[in-house]
Amino acid sequence: MDIFPPSLEQMIDALTRLPGVGRKTAQRYAFHLLRGSHEDSLGLAEAVREAVERIRRCERCGNYSETALCAICRDTRRDETVICVVEEAVDIAPFDRSGFNGLYHVLGGLFSPLQGIVDAEQLRIRELFDRLRDGVVREVIAATPTTPDGEATALWLARALRPYDVKMTRLGMGMPMGGSLEYVDENTLQKALECRLSM
Amino acid sequence: MDIFPPSLEQMIDALTRLPGVGRKTAQRYAFHLLRGSHEDSLGLAEAVREAVERIRRCERCGNYSETALCAICRDTRRDETVICVVEEAVDIAPFDRSGFNGLYHVLGGLFSPLQGIVDAEQLRIRELFDRLRDGVVREVIAATPTTPDGEATALWLARALRPYDVKMTRLGMGMPMGGSLEYVDENTLQKALECRLSM
Repeated sequence: MDIFPPSLEQMIDALTRLPGVGRKTAQRYAFHLLRGSHEDSLGLAEAVREAVERIRRCERCGNYSETALCAICRDTRRDETVICVVEEAVDIAPFDRSGFNGLYHVLGGLFSPLQGIVDAEQLRIRELFDRLRDGVVREVIAATPTTPDGEATALWLARALRPYDVKMTRLGMGMPMGGSLEYVDENTLQKALECRLSM
Repeated sequence: MDIFPPSLEQMIDALTRLPGVGRKTAQRYAFHLLRGSHEDSLGLAEAVREAVERIRRCERCGNYSETALCAICRDTRRDETVICVVEEAVDIAPFDRSGFNGLYHVLGGLFSPLQGIVDAEQLRIRELFDRLRDGVVREVIAATPTTPDGEATALWLARALRPYDVKMTRLGMGMPMGGSLEYVDENTLQKALECRLSM
C-alpha cells in the first residue's frame, strides 16, 4: 500500500531524475524539503522554474545567459583575440577562476562515436568558424578534456582550423599542481616527461 | 565577475540547501536541469511546489498526509491495538515493508540535550497519550534508533506510560540479518549475547 501521499511520491520520483540521485537520496531530499521552512522549499521550486524558463545559450559563445549575449561576451575589457574552446558551459568557471581573460566557445559536447556524436553539425562548430571570419581572433586554445574523445575533438579542430589564419594550441599536460608522485598515474607521468620544461 | 546569469546562481544557491549538497553538487544538478528537457525540469519544480503546499501531518499519528488522517490511519484493516513509535515519518517505510500491520506514532524527534530537545512539549508526546485514553491500544513498541538519544527517549516513554494499561516493548537487538561476524561492532555483539535465544 502507499503509506505516503501521492504528491510526496511524485516529488521523490522527480528528484530521482537528478544526476547520481537514487531513490534513497531523493527520499532524503524530499523529507528535508517537507521538514524545513515552507518558504525555503517553495523558494527552491521557484528558483528552478525561473532559471529553466529564463536561461538560454549565448548566441555567440554558447555559455548560459539570460540575454542574447552572455556576461563574458558583453564584457569589453576581455581579450577578443583568444578563444578557449570547451566542451560544456560548466567548464568556463575553472578557467575564469584561473585568471584567463580571453573569450570562450562552448562546443556542447565532443566527437564521440560511442555516444553517436560523429558529425560537426551535432556540435557548435559552425558557430566557431563564424567567429574566425573577421580576423580578430589570433589564437584558439583547445581546452577539451584529456580523454580519448577530448583528444580526438582537439585533433579534429586543429585540422579543420588549418585554412584559417589562427594559431591553434592545446592545454599543457603533465603533473597537476600540488600533485605527489606517489599518486600520479603512469599516463600522466609519461606526458610530464614528454613535455618536460628546461630550467 | 559573474560568468553565469543571476537566475542560474540563484538556482545553484537554492540547491545547496538540500542535505549533503555542496556547491559542486548543486552546480552539477543545476547544469543537468538546464541541459535536460525543459518539461522534465519544470516538472521537478512543480512537483516540489505541489508537495510542499499540499502535505501536512496526519492529525492522529504525525505521518505525512494530504488529508486530515493519513492512509495508514484511514485503513480499517490494520491492527489498532499496537502502536509503533518512531522518530520520523521516514522511519515508517521500512516497518511497513517488513510486514508490520499495526499503527504508528511519529514523535518528530528524540529527547536530545545536545539539540536542545529536553521537554515533552517539543515532541508529539501528548498526542501519543491521547491515543491511549480509550483503552483500544494494548501495546506500544518503542522503535526509536539504538543511539544514546533513541535509548533515552525509549526509557522516558516506558516510565511515562506506566500509569496507562498498555504493554511497552522495545525492538529486539542483536545481529543484523545477513550480517557476517567479521564486520559486526562489539556493542552489537554484546547485545546479541545478552539477548541470546534458546533453540
